[in-house]
Amino acid sequence: MPARQLVLNVFLQRHGHHPAAWRHPSASASGRPDLAWWLHAARLAEAAKFDSFFIADFIGRSGDVTPDTGRAAIGLPFEPYTLLSAIAAVTSHIGLIATVNTNYEHPYHVARKFSSLDHLSGGRAGWNVVSSFGDHTARNFGIDAARSHADRYARADEFVALSKMLWDSWDDEAFDRPDHAAGQFYRPEAGHPLDFQGQYFASQGLLDLPRPVQGHPVLVQAGNSETGREFAARQAEMVYCSATSLPVAQAYYGDVKGRMAKYGRAQDQLKVTPGLSVVVAESDQQAQDRFGELQALVDFGNLEFGGFDLSGYPLDGPLPDLPYQAGDNGKGRFQQQLELARRENLSLRQLVLRFRVARGHLQAIGSVRTVADLMEQWFVERGADGFNVVPPLLPQGFEDFTRLVVPELQRRGLFRTEYAASTLRGHLGLARPANPHTAAQARAA
Amino acid sequence: MPARQLVLNVFLQRHGHHPAAWRHPSASASGRPDLAWWLHAARLAEAAKFDSFFIADFIGRSGDVTPDTGRAAIGLPFEPYTLLSAIAAVTSHIGLIATVNTNYEHPYHVARKFSSLDHLSGGRAGWNVVSSFGDHTARNFGIDAARSHADRYARADEFVALSKMLWDSWDDEAFDRPDHAAGQFYRPEAGHPLDFQGQYFASQGLLDLPRPVQGHPVLVQAGNSETGREFAARQAEMVYCSATSLPVAQAYYGDVKGRMAKYGRAQDQLKVTPGLSVVVAESDQQAQDRFGELQALVDFGNLEFGGFDLSGYPLDGPLPDLPYQAGDNGKGRFQQQLELARRENLSLRQLVLRFRVARGHLQAIGSVRTVADLMEQWFVERGADGFNVVPPLLPQGFEDFTRLVVPELQRRGLFRTEYAASTLRGHLGLARPANPHTAAQARAA
Repeated sequence: MPARQLVLNVFLQRHGHHPAAWRHPSASASGRPDLAWWLHAARLAEAAKFDSFFIADFIGRSGDVTPDTGRAAIGLPFEPYTLLSAIAAVTSHIGLIATVNTNYEHPYHVARKFSSLDHLSGGRAGWNVVSSFGDHTARNFGIDAARSHADRYARADEFVALSKMLWDSWDDEAFDRPDHAAGQFYRPEAGHPLDFQGQYFASQGLLDLPRPVQGHPVLVQAGNSETGREFAARQAEMVYCSATSLPVAQAYYGDVKGRMAKYGRAQDQLKVTPGLSVVVAESDQQAQDRFGELQALVDFGNLEFGGFDLSGYPLDGPLPDLPYQAGDNGKGRFQQQLELARRENLSLRQLVLRFRVARGHLQAIGSVRTVADLMEQWFVERGADGFNVVPPLLPQGFEDFTRLVVPELQRRGLFRTEYAASTLRGHLGLARPANPHTAAQARAA
Repeated sequence: MPARQLVLNVFLQRHGHHPAAWRHPSASASGRPDLAWWLHAARLAEAAKFDSFFIADFIGRSGDVTPDTGRAAIGLPFEPYTLLSAIAAVTSHIGLIATVNTNYEHPYHVARKFSSLDHLSGGRAGWNVVSSFGDHTARNFGIDAARSHADRYARADEFVALSKMLWDSWDDEAFDRPDHAAGQFYRPEAGHPLDFQGQYFASQGLLDLPRPVQGHPVLVQAGNSETGREFAARQAEMVYCSATSLPVAQAYYGDVKGRMAKYGRAQDQLKVTPGLSVVVAESDQQAQDRFGELQALVDFGNLEFGGFDLSGYPLDGPLPDLPYQAGDNGKGRFQQQLELARRENLSLRQLVLRFRVARGHLQAIGSVRTVADLMEQWFVERGADGFNVVPPLLPQGFEDFTRLVVPELQRRGLFRTEYAASTLRGHLGLARPANPHTAAQARAA
């Protein structure tokens, strides 16, 4: 059995994840989406042998056009399926993970597009399943009613279950060998029509694409609440999470993996990849200086924390009381930050510089050795199976990471030097899901 | 003013449009979708300076797995947005037209994906708006209720109108010049939030992508009914149609263009492009022989015509009475075929060989001169502004067309030898739609 190795995903945003990245002197003069830039980044990630290229998606846009709204960079990035399909055409190995929300469309559309992306890319698709429900996005879609946290997870569960049924509606080999002479394009027995009537969705018939190359795309998830952890343990194959200390990361890692046995799943079939915000340079001091350049550009207007408007409070005063109830409303990450802010008695300014800049992710700012040591420790001590690299400033932040950190991880034997597989499942060491219909036939035979 | 030139689109299906193409000795051994094949075809079309690469989409798949269902090739092709995005990454000029149905999702999703495709491709997106409503697709989406022809067009109208509002929700230049020093990513006044409540859809807020490069993607349509023609005259910029004789084509051309004036539109802002099924070879006889090879492979099982099951009737007997009412149910093309079959007293076998093989499109089978003469006549005599080339057999049928016919059309001065523009609107000579908000501000100033 080969030694356990790091998983490395990269999660990019147009100018970088730091809120002031777009104001940095190196930033692009235009805020438009730019395909050439994304193709460059994807090729860089593939050359560095990353497991996957991950696209977040905060679908929807509020109608708020009050004067301050223009003071923050907004993504307005490409839509994920279209961007990842373009990337698929110019890469050959790297995984392609799209975020798709389960609140705004029917699973038939989603199962179909992921199947198409998986076929296009030769088995490299992953689906980051999110069920967040922002009021403004709901309004974009003309949805009036609120949806509770529990209801959104129940919908997501059914959405994923139905998607799997659709992917499994054809045998893997259904279209591999048309019989030209007999005039038989496919054996009809290879199709397994659904007749699904659930609480949220209904679907009859067959998916209009062959079963995905990977059986199912890799399922990724990011929830931190109790419900989210259970969802991950039951069906996620990779989780994005955030933790700023190793004990917190270890507790999460152990908790989520510990929940898997009751679903009959082996712990290595779920990869835990915390976000990692890296600024790497030749020395620790240079890295700190570089990070300082970004911090100096932070705009303290539009003060908010976890969705609460703090703009009336003094910047150097303490965090006021917030009308927040601990518990199940899906703000697991916010709750961690809130507790830390109280414990360390942070001012609003400190809060912004600490959390908004890295959005609760682990920060590694320093020399190659500093960064690699931290990654190795978290990996070896089971705080992480790998990382979701979130560069604060682009393109430099990611170029530096691939140029400086990746070779060091490879030198330490922690990361691959060549791809050993051509699918995302292959990179991650995840089993290919069997088609339950085929499996049932095999048992009957 | 430059001379009027032909529009050439290409419409490919996996093995070719002829129903027996998949059984031809040159056909691929596998029925799976194959990206390399599509990228090859798109590059071929771009090298030949085609206006656009068109993807049909018959979303959905019946649950029928009775023994005969495997006797016909089924597409199970890539989903259009994903395939065209992949093609966008490896081409630079050719237009990319996706078919998207207005019955199964919310306009916010569709407006967003077309905007993304238009940005990805630098302004090459087109949308073939279809509103067909198959029972089996409805069941895939868990939709019980039938939708009338009139209702589907009303929905399509509102769908397109809302999509345009979403595209127009940002000024063209909104994200072009972030002000780094002042910390202003965009001017909030550049956003024009919607508050739309229609008969079928509601939407508030802003689209989450900048206005498309082309303002709006090119709108394409294919209906032949009275309602369809009116829809085309009002808002289509290209129509796909089918006609097998020049007088029928001229009547359609004149009728649709004649309806445009009442909407304040100039006739050159709508391109009429009938389908053209071409088999071209060095001589007329060679082309006929090549076509004969395909006809000999036709399977007369599963006899149906316009959705009516004819499998109980003698193959060499006449067309029986069909429970069909002429009128507005969206079967304009079928009605033309039905009338011709009655007039010429065709047997079922002749009906299949005549219509199913070219699906009602004009057929041009012959030498380069025969094919080019036919195209020139239809173009000059205003039966067509160009053609939607539908090769019966692939890849050969399209390779032959680009190698033999395109140079002849260029020699005659009927078709471009280089692209003069980089957007689909540019190729077609279509105006870029102004943003009504910007236009209103300019008037007020």
